[in-house]
Amino acid sequence: MKRVTIYDISEILNISPSTVSRALNDSPSVKTKTKEKIIEVAKQLNYFHNKTASRLKTGKNNTVGIIVPYINHSIFSAIIQVIEEILAPLGYIILICQTYEKTVNEIKHIQSLLTNQVECIFVSVTMETINYDHFKKVTSAGIPLIFFDRKADIENVSSVILNDFKSAYKATEHLIEQGCKRIAHFKGNQNLEIYRNRYDGYLKALKDYKIPVDPDLIISCKSSIEEGKRAFNELYNANISLDAIFSPNDHAILGAYQEIKNYNIKVPEEIALVGFSNEIFTKYIEIPITTVFQNPELMGTKAAKFFLEQTNKETTDITHKNEIIEGTLLVRASSKKR
Amino acid sequence: MKRVTIYDISEILNISPSTVSRALNDSPSVKTKTKEKIIEVAKQLNYFHNKTASRLKTGKNNTVGIIVPYINHSIFSAIIQVIEEILAPLGYIILICQTYEKTVNEIKHIQSLLTNQVECIFVSVTMETINYDHFKKVTSAGIPLIFFDRKADIENVSSVILNDFKSAYKATEHLIEQGCKRIAHFKGNQNLEIYRNRYDGYLKALKDYKIPVDPDLIISCKSSIEEGKRAFNELYNANISLDAIFSPNDHAILGAYQEIKNYNIKVPEEIALVGFSNEIFTKYIEIPITTVFQNPELMGTKAAKFFLEQTNKETTDITHKNEIIEGTLLVRASSKKR
Repeated sequence: MKRVTIYDISEILNISPSTVSRALNDSPSVKTKTKEKIIEVAKQLNYFHNKTASRLKTGKNNTVGIIVPYINHSIFSAIIQVIEEILAPLGYIILICQTYEKTVNEIKHIQSLLTNQVECIFVSVTMETINYDHFKKVTSAGIPLIFFDRKADIENVSSVILNDFKSAYKATEHLIEQGCKRIAHFKGNQNLEIYRNRYDGYLKALKDYKIPVDPDLIISCKSSIEEGKRAFNELYNANISLDAIFSPNDHAILGAYQEIKNYNIKVPEEIALVGFSNEIFTKYIEIPITTVFQNPELMGTKAAKFFLEQTNKETTDITHKNEIIEGTLLVRASSKKR
Repeated sequence: MKRVTIYDISEILNISPSTVSRALNDSPSVKTKTKEKIIEVAKQLNYFHNKTASRLKTGKNNTVGIIVPYINHSIFSAIIQVIEEILAPLGYIILICQTYEKTVNEIKHIQSLLTNQVECIFVSVTMETINYDHFKKVTSAGIPLIFFDRKADIENVSSVILNDFKSAYKATEHLIEQGCKRIAHFKGNQNLEIYRNRYDGYLKALKDYKIPVDPDLIISCKSSIEEGKRAFNELYNANISLDAIFSPNDHAILGAYQEIKNYNIKVPEEIALVGFSNEIFTKYIEIPITTVFQNPELMGTKAAKFFLEQTNKETTDITHKNEIIEGTLLVRASSKKR
């Protein structure tokens, strides 16, 4: 069977091949009505089944990929939404992939998106990832790679991340200002820069306010309700005295809160709580939880902008940008002692 | 430049071309060590940039697409997770697309996934969708189309949905058993079968228990916190007496609850509340909200199974399955009057 090309469609409709091409790539420069007519004929000719062939020529398909650890964490779904809101009206299709914090999934998704010839890959790196070869494959293929929230330290990429150090510093400082002196920390996976920075922010605030660091108060804890329960119970069963917990994520603080409630310990009077990420439940829980708002709208807007700047440049002489945005501490009942 | 093929890789490694092919398609039948060796050589030869070409021959790329209205609604993220848990170990890559309830996005995503030659498309239909031509394009291309939670009435598809009618009936019946007689309903978009069925379940329960249907108590309301606030305020400002609300989604009932709290109305004593979907906040809110658990694990498992059954068949003589699973009413403090 003869392969259908844009020239066949062009001939039938008496519309220039370049207009047909732009219409089939959903370019905003072609009128909707013309686009519909072209797509209709393309359908009739069964053009789309051959489109893979045409992609070999153009190397463009108006698709971008976004890879995140979990689609249902508020920071990631909010950033994805902003990127889609900006890129969809420009004709881009957004494919979302989920790693569940596994490097093996990240590698597979990068491979799959490259095979699908996306024009850009946005990534928030998994907690496990320590080898960056799969990311280098993207940059060496000349495809823009943009990190958000969590980044890998490699060359030729842009990134937009939170000032995690300062946000954690402010969270800890706030607890100190409320009179807390025995502040526990649910230390996140230190492979991940965001968790290292949140831990460092906590330590620095204690140091600046001359509060001794007690290793008994620092407990490794993953980002889940179950882990938060486990971590609190370890502190409780070891009879460690504490008057506050700063968790670098909201899920663990929610778990801790459940246990604290079971033991009839008063929040914030006996133990003040601060989380991180502004998950929806922190606002609507019985005692609303103080948390750090990560400005996902701003983060997503910057990430999309970095891609558009790169892709619209004629030259390959790209200036990569690494931007750090500030978090906002949302003070709620769980930490207001004064 | 000569195009690299599996035969080049096969020759270098002295491994059969079919094994190379299976390895590059991440088939579980090839040992991990062999697979790694093959992928390494494929990388060195820059094979992957040519993979699009090879896809034209096989028409298979071990990728499936999932299209949902919102990735951050618990029912959708939970079903996606189950489908990934089942298909990823079999070597499938999952691409997720989000419609934001817009048909135009659904059409674009279907088109994009077809262009990317996915082997199956799982869809939960948008609220707006009334024309099903884009779905027919999938089935006529011979690609399995599987609906979950929300389906379109077309031929040659499989689906797994909830018994929304019975779940809504049970929710309303529960409120009646608690002594409620003036039960308001936040009527969802009636384009959508799930909302028609939930509305019908509400009406049927009232009828069976001989409670008159009062149109004043039935108010159109979208699935959002803001809409729930608006709907409750309309009832409140019109001085409509009510002793319960059954909302066919959790977001609107959360909005209503916020307003009820502002007016110092007691839940459940003065107004009992029941939502739908078991969103995470319903469990952790001040007064935990009674809701319907939609068994997303079972729904996702069935959907994945339907695909595997279809794809493993040698013939095109497929039996399409339409399965309805039961919801579970989770009774919590917001509706326990007795």
